[in-house]
Amino acid sequence: MRVNAYAAPAAGQPLVPTTIERRDVGSHDVLIEIQYAGICHSDIHTVNGDWGPQPFPVVPGHEIVGIVAEVGTDVTRHKVGDRVGVGCLVNSCGHCTNCQGGDEQYCANGMVPTYAGVDRDGTTTQGGYSTHVVVDADYVLSVPQSLDPAAAAPLLCAGITTYAPLRRWAAGPGKKVAIVGLGGLGHMAVKIAHALGAEVTVLSQTLKKQEDGLRLGADAYYATSDLDTFEQLAGRFDLIINTVSASIDPNAYLGLLAIDGTLVNVGAPAEPLSLNVMSLIGGRRNFAGSMIGGIALTQEMLDFCADHGIGSEVEVIPADRINQAYERVLASDVRYRFVIDTASLN
Amino acid sequence: MRVNAYAAPAAGQPLVPTTIERRDVGSHDVLIEIQYAGICHSDIHTVNGDWGPQPFPVVPGHEIVGIVAEVGTDVTRHKVGDRVGVGCLVNSCGHCTNCQGGDEQYCANGMVPTYAGVDRDGTTTQGGYSTHVVVDADYVLSVPQSLDPAAAAPLLCAGITTYAPLRRWAAGPGKKVAIVGLGGLGHMAVKIAHALGAEVTVLSQTLKKQEDGLRLGADAYYATSDLDTFEQLAGRFDLIINTVSASIDPNAYLGLLAIDGTLVNVGAPAEPLSLNVMSLIGGRRNFAGSMIGGIALTQEMLDFCADHGIGSEVEVIPADRINQAYERVLASDVRYRFVIDTASLN
Repeated sequence: MRVNAYAAPAAGQPLVPTTIERRDVGSHDVLIEIQYAGICHSDIHTVNGDWGPQPFPVVPGHEIVGIVAEVGTDVTRHKVGDRVGVGCLVNSCGHCTNCQGGDEQYCANGMVPTYAGVDRDGTTTQGGYSTHVVVDADYVLSVPQSLDPAAAAPLLCAGITTYAPLRRWAAGPGKKVAIVGLGGLGHMAVKIAHALGAEVTVLSQTLKKQEDGLRLGADAYYATSDLDTFEQLAGRFDLIINTVSASIDPNAYLGLLAIDGTLVNVGAPAEPLSLNVMSLIGGRRNFAGSMIGGIALTQEMLDFCADHGIGSEVEVIPADRINQAYERVLASDVRYRFVIDTASLN
Repeated sequence: MRVNAYAAPAAGQPLVPTTIERRDVGSHDVLIEIQYAGICHSDIHTVNGDWGPQPFPVVPGHEIVGIVAEVGTDVTRHKVGDRVGVGCLVNSCGHCTNCQGGDEQYCANGMVPTYAGVDRDGTTTQGGYSTHVVVDADYVLSVPQSLDPAAAAPLLCAGITTYAPLRRWAAGPGKKVAIVGLGGLGHMAVKIAHALGAEVTVLSQTLKKQEDGLRLGADAYYATSDLDTFEQLAGRFDLIINTVSASIDPNAYLGLLAIDGTLVNVGAPAEPLSLNVMSLIGGRRNFAGSMIGGIALTQEMLDFCADHGIGSEVEVIPADRINQAYERVLASDVRYRFVIDTASLN
């Protein structure tokens, strides 16, 4: 099956319209007619070659929402007409300890990323900037009807990336949670942490987005460019989710944690950080990292978001504006996620 | 009360015999006739001025075991003739969240260290290299009779420093625990982790102390100077306790953790470490720090060690060999803790 898509032909090149081949629907596969695909910063890093060589042409996109168009003979979990989603992974070994424990994203034998990866059948995966995709049914999520499909697309990456650490480190009533950065990930973290019942503080470089932050559910908003912030909030938080991939001073942020508090990075700066171990010992503090989430937890997150009326704040664009959107993402000029209306690919 | 002691007269100077004044026994105080005082690496750092200016002369020693000689009118917890211990702290505010939570070592108003600190009455604290000490009853531990008093002294610092993270991060049956370094702290960590039921691996620079490590309770022993070790043990451990204060490559050790594993530093290298955040994100790993333990946990540790027949491996010395012992500690020439027989001070 040949389908329309937008692909990066080579590292750093603008994306162009093209067609790609989707595999035949296997007995355990689902064919999805894609409606919306979110633009994640990872897409840009990948096609720019920031993360090493890629199997160009690359069709990015791992925040996919669409409708089931066909199912394989063995598929019972989804049926034609269902609204479904696909996130950052489309396969894993299924039998290692991590897969068995619901952490397919940490598959010991290598999970298969939704694009620029090698699927278990040997083909190169191509992502959601496309009209259709064929995915193993076990890696297809159900997207509740009450969610707006465009606003739901970013939940498949930005949503689960922030939901997973918020749940793991028990954000909830009585907990003081700080979110560093109010971008695509950060704005989801604020909404989810608020819905979980935590007291939410945004730590952003400036107060430029303060009004937005409070509207999205934050109880407080501080500028990290103001050094008083670090004195004023010293020892305050139980949990800090750092959504910023730029290098930060981890010691400054660790100083904002109460004892037993945890700073969780969901973004990885390109350069190593300089960590003063006394920042950890001095408060029995933890510095942790977290990467997306497993399939069951992603489903839990979608259901949680539906229950709490949570979607991403999105700017829906046609496919021919992808390159412009990339520039605006790099300039932090989006509130808060671009989503491609893939009907524009037809 | 004027008592004999050994004190460092100035930074970097050898310790010399002297006399110091101990305060009168207040209504809530205990006068302890000291029997044994362990030599901790911290003592050496402090008197060498590695940790900044100190109120010289300084009498070090925060691994103290002795017998109660007198109690204040309000003391019910200890009585004359009891065997007791004093660790790294002799006071704290008692009312902050951390003190109320049993973490007096993290007192928000500043805990009072056993030496070179300012006590709540304004006097400078002096440590255990001395014949007597007066301590608030709430900071005096009961040392079970079944413990050898010389071997028990190091439990008050080396014991609790390793017991606390082993308990907090749930070392026990089914858990794979690695101990980095087999010195004063490391040998206690091996004994305690083994007694807790964990599978214990020692990671030491060389195999020089392998026989000892296995005798003390380790199930396996690897040399970190052998780079194969890091490949062979990749992803293996649930918990790593790093007892080494020298700079290590945290990324190499984090790579030895299974997902959700934790690397806990109990020693603080002088220089910041270079941390690659992907070492955390790539396995949802944690890097944490831990500092001694609260009073209740220290008592629990002493009782646990008594139940399991655990003491430190000690070399008992008279006070006039303290300076020589310091040199041998710096040369890692002790298996595994020097303990001063304070009777030699009389």
